[in-house]
Amino acid sequence: MRIDIISVIPELMQSPFEHSILKRAQEKKLVEIHFHNLRDYALNNYGKIDDSPFGGGAGMVLMIEPIDKCITKLKTERNYDEIIYMTPDAPILNQQTSNTLSLSQNILILTGHYKGVDQRVRDLFITKEISIGNYVLSGGELAAVVLCDAIVRLLPGVLGDETSALTDSFQDNLLAPEVYTRPATYKNKEVPNVLLSGNFKKIDAWREQNALKRTKRIRPNLLN
Amino acid sequence: MRIDIISVIPELMQSPFEHSILKRAQEKKLVEIHFHNLRDYALNNYGKIDDSPFGGGAGMVLMIEPIDKCITKLKTERNYDEIIYMTPDAPILNQQTSNTLSLSQNILILTGHYKGVDQRVRDLFITKEISIGNYVLSGGELAAVVLCDAIVRLLPGVLGDETSALTDSFQDNLLAPEVYTRPATYKNKEVPNVLLSGNFKKIDAWREQNALKRTKRIRPNLLN
Repeated sequence: MRIDIISVIPELMQSPFEHSILKRAQEKKLVEIHFHNLRDYALNNYGKIDDSPFGGGAGMVLMIEPIDKCITKLKTERNYDEIIYMTPDAPILNQQTSNTLSLSQNILILTGHYKGVDQRVRDLFITKEISIGNYVLSGGELAAVVLCDAIVRLLPGVLGDETSALTDSFQDNLLAPEVYTRPATYKNKEVPNVLLSGNFKKIDAWREQNALKRTKRIRPNLLN
Repeated sequence: MRIDIISVIPELMQSPFEHSILKRAQEKKLVEIHFHNLRDYALNNYGKIDDSPFGGGAGMVLMIEPIDKCITKLKTERNYDEIIYMTPDAPILNQQTSNTLSLSQNILILTGHYKGVDQRVRDLFITKEISIGNYVLSGGELAAVVLCDAIVRLLPGVLGDETSALTDSFQDNLLAPEVYTRPATYKNKEVPNVLLSGNFKKIDAWREQNALKRTKRIRPNLLN
């Protein structure tokens, strides 16, 4: 898989891609990440890429022309399964979307900053808009990293233990059950007995029940 | 405001705090960010901080003892408004939670990694659990950065233009209206006429209608 990310501040995204899962996935050649600085496609030598919104109001809006130049160039080089715009006012990412996107060959992600991009960018170039949640961030960069992490960890071979992602929360519309590790007793707080029993049938049943109970309590809407 | 973050991989979070809003907020002394490496509180010289889950299964679980040592030390140094655990199986962050947390003096954030933390950590130390969405990430680090960004941008003085955050999506349970900037015509695609009219009453009315229409289409549940 190849992921291209267009941003005004690509440096902001550097460290998450240099550690842990995202680093390992790149080292194993399971994913390639390419940053593109929107300023390289600016209108003039001052690097102009944004302007005030028509109709007035606070904040700056990313202009269509530099984005058009950047996306058009990238599209001549390869076909993209999706050209994604990260924005709060879009359908929210869920595990199903991550699963689907993890099957792509090439993804292009445009990240907004300031007040977002000129609406015509969204109308003309974007095939999919994604929000990571009902809250506002300073820019789409963090959202893009979150999306990449959610997708890349699903690529076969990225996680050390293949079964690990399958027992994550949401893969069966249930939250994961509680987990415990050594020591069995810590300051009088004990691990549930069944987990020490060695009876895997009982353990599986407990986990299923625990997952269901927790989902009902914490996120009842997952069960609908 | 002071934010302490406990993590197995604090380096992963470095670049987002060194750019844009989060950098500026620290430079202006409006927020202090302190990372704590859980390995500094490890059980032995090999840096042991995790172990297999009781009852079997894939993945590793962060042990209670190093986390206890770290949190207990930090709590002797100051009072925390909240001790937050970032985890997918928790109530989901929204703009209201961000607004409330932005009023805190001190926040402590624990980030899980691998299969998460021993459940007893959550029972004993955590005052608030937060998920950033219905999807699984490799660790809580990215979620912690997202939370910090969502909170810090709301601190008075952080955003250059005070009114900017107020016109964001969600602050009034509506998505933001479409935005446009120069040029007024680009490859035959035109900006809505009203935005060029200079009639601010009409512009406000259009924006309100546009916000409502978009919310109905993209996120109808925000209107309930």
